[in-house]
Amino acid sequence: MGSFKVAVIEGDGIGPEVCRAACEVLEKTGEIFGHEFEFNKALAGGIAIDETGECLPEATVNLCRASDSILLGAVGGPKWDDLSGEARPETALLGLREELGLYANLRPATIHMALKNACPLKEEIIGDGIDILIVRELTGGIYFGEKGWKGSKNGMKAYDVESYSEAEVKRIAIRAFDSAMNRQKRVVSVDKANVMESSRLWRRVVTEVSHDYPEVELTHMYVDNAAMQLIKDPRQFDVMVTSNIFGDILSDEASMITGSIGLLPSASLGEGNFGMYEPIHGSAPDIAGQNTANPIAAILSSAMMLRHSFGLIEEARCIENAVTKVLESGYRTYDIKDSYKIIKSEEGRESVSSMIMGCKEMG
Amino acid sequence: MGSFKVAVIEGDGIGPEVCRAACEVLEKTGEIFGHEFEFNKALAGGIAIDETGECLPEATVNLCRASDSILLGAVGGPKWDDLSGEARPETALLGLREELGLYANLRPATIHMALKNACPLKEEIIGDGIDILIVRELTGGIYFGEKGWKGSKNGMKAYDVESYSEAEVKRIAIRAFDSAMNRQKRVVSVDKANVMESSRLWRRVVTEVSHDYPEVELTHMYVDNAAMQLIKDPRQFDVMVTSNIFGDILSDEASMITGSIGLLPSASLGEGNFGMYEPIHGSAPDIAGQNTANPIAAILSSAMMLRHSFGLIEEARCIENAVTKVLESGYRTYDIKDSYKIIKSEEGRESVSSMIMGCKEMG
Ligand SMILES: [Mg+2]
Ligand SMILES: [Mg+2]
Repeated sequence: MGSFKVAVIEGDGIGPEVCRAACEVLEKTGEIFGHEFEFNKALAGGIAIDETGECLPEATVNLCRASDSILLGAVGGPKWDDLSGEARPETALLGLREELGLYANLRPATIHMALKNACPLKEEIIGDGIDILIVRELTGGIYFGEKGWKGSKNGMKAYDVESYSEAEVKRIAIRAFDSAMNRQKRVVSVDKANVMESSRLWRRVVTEVSHDYPEVELTHMYVDNAAMQLIKDPRQFDVMVTSNIFGDILSDEASMITGSIGLLPSASLGEGNFGMYEPIHGSAPDIAGQNTANPIAAILSSAMMLRHSFGLIEEARCIENAVTKVLESGYRTYDIKDSYKIIKSEEGRESVSSMIMGCKEMG
Repeated sequence: MGSFKVAVIEGDGIGPEVCRAACEVLEKTGEIFGHEFEFNKALAGGIAIDETGECLPEATVNLCRASDSILLGAVGGPKWDDLSGEARPETALLGLREELGLYANLRPATIHMALKNACPLKEEIIGDGIDILIVRELTGGIYFGEKGWKGSKNGMKAYDVESYSEAEVKRIAIRAFDSAMNRQKRVVSVDKANVMESSRLWRRVVTEVSHDYPEVELTHMYVDNAAMQLIKDPRQFDVMVTSNIFGDILSDEASMITGSIGLLPSASLGEGNFGMYEPIHGSAPDIAGQNTANPIAAILSSAMMLRHSFGLIEEARCIENAVTKVLESGYRTYDIKDSYKIIKSEEGRESVSSMIMGCKEMG
């Protein structure tokens, strides 16, 4: 029996409706398992720009700091597309990661077997399913390194520095091995150690960390090969850990491979148990407010919250099983309709909520 | 009627047998169209280490400089796996690129419709075929930038610098647009301009070059999105141009998507018409000398040579069509066997040679 404070940043577009669905599913789970969730809303993104002039108001950061975790919907939309750089809604995400030290991005790439028709890969490759967890370093590397322009004999030259310290690699490696201990106990570390020095350091530190996890099998793989293997045989992967830039590319590739890209959750973790949880889909302003958005990615994000921030493993599985059952029952929102029973977002959330009870009883 | 000097670097493993096949196909093409090819062999890779003590002897570089183009088989093998860094057979490739200024890597990712069963993607995505040309910058960027280690408060730190000059981007962009003019006239330039300065320079220079090619449609795409789009809808791509590291990842991903990875050729081009042509497959020492290696990648590499170094477009198409016909006739080497007529390497080469005559007559 626990009591948890969740900061809810609904954001823009379909953000509010999918967050509402996730919160109700959390509440239902709390009722059944005897936990209490206190939800406090905060502004970020386009709506924050409209109401306060800033995409990430101070009050939002403070509320997040005073909370046990964050649930985030989505930010951005055409309304704010003319704003430049720093002023854009998306900058709020970078700000939150930085302010809260969210250095580990966990991106599951899971295929829902009920939706395997949507998978771009042939049936014999999918086999009995794909279940990969990509652990991406999120606050270091080339996206945050020194960068700039300078004159040279060949005209202007521009540069960006990829750089990693031992401490940065160590903490992300620990996240990967910890995650693997609750899964299939296999970690693939992706780098380009045949040509990059930062990759050589990466490989050395990951190998050192692996000695503390004798049960976990560690393999090293070059990034170009990893991009191939994800297509050739995605079932070989359990946990994949990699740098910011390689993780950016490979996590998106892996998501697309599942064919369920609109249904995938994510977590961004900092020190201790704190984390921010959000669907990987965007704010989809074109369908906002029509009760047609698919709430599954947000609901699965709340399950990740239970697992990673609150240590409620059984409760998390319960939500995930409920989602699987709803999909197996043939319920579909418009985005994944085929010849199935089309339901509204709210009904989707209600279906998951009602399934949770069943999943607990099955136990 | 032309006369061309080709340096032939057979290398290790199956290198010699696939080179022989490609040379005979070139000779046959020369007979039919009235061109003369002078083939001169040179050593590189493991065999060069064994015979001269160096993976890339001076004499080889000199012969290449005195030739109009290079045909390369494959280098490396377990025999030389214990050698470290500079001494390894693979270093010969880096040496050749550097010595000869081969800055543009052309990697076609083509699906042979006769082999579409081998493609990992579902039939509705393959549609009537995939035909992508990836143009990768090969001598700049992070693989060749400043790199090293230094101490920091977080322990050791290692870094690699990604950097591009206007001149470097301009020449690779010109290669991409020139190639597009002979194809579908569409170029997708891949970068990460939302976070990297070198990508912003890349995007600016590619856009400038595009003004000289008003018939070619230019689109910019972020690298993470490109990794997804290759899976979601590979048919949207004609020519893709990108940096060394992004091209490394995306060209391998694209090759895997075709399902014909053992059959794909490549070209590395320098200033003017000079180029080095080689299969993307390795030296496969386990099957060397058994007359079972698939010669198609080497044969298609020779077709790229005709097109890019010698301007013999019709002759190149003729070889490519002959390969397609041989595959459509159901001939297969062991690597791509299914329920087809298995043939030996030599028969494969002979089949292609005999088809070339037919293709010319049709043509
Ligand atoms: Mg991304
Ligand atoms: Mg590669």
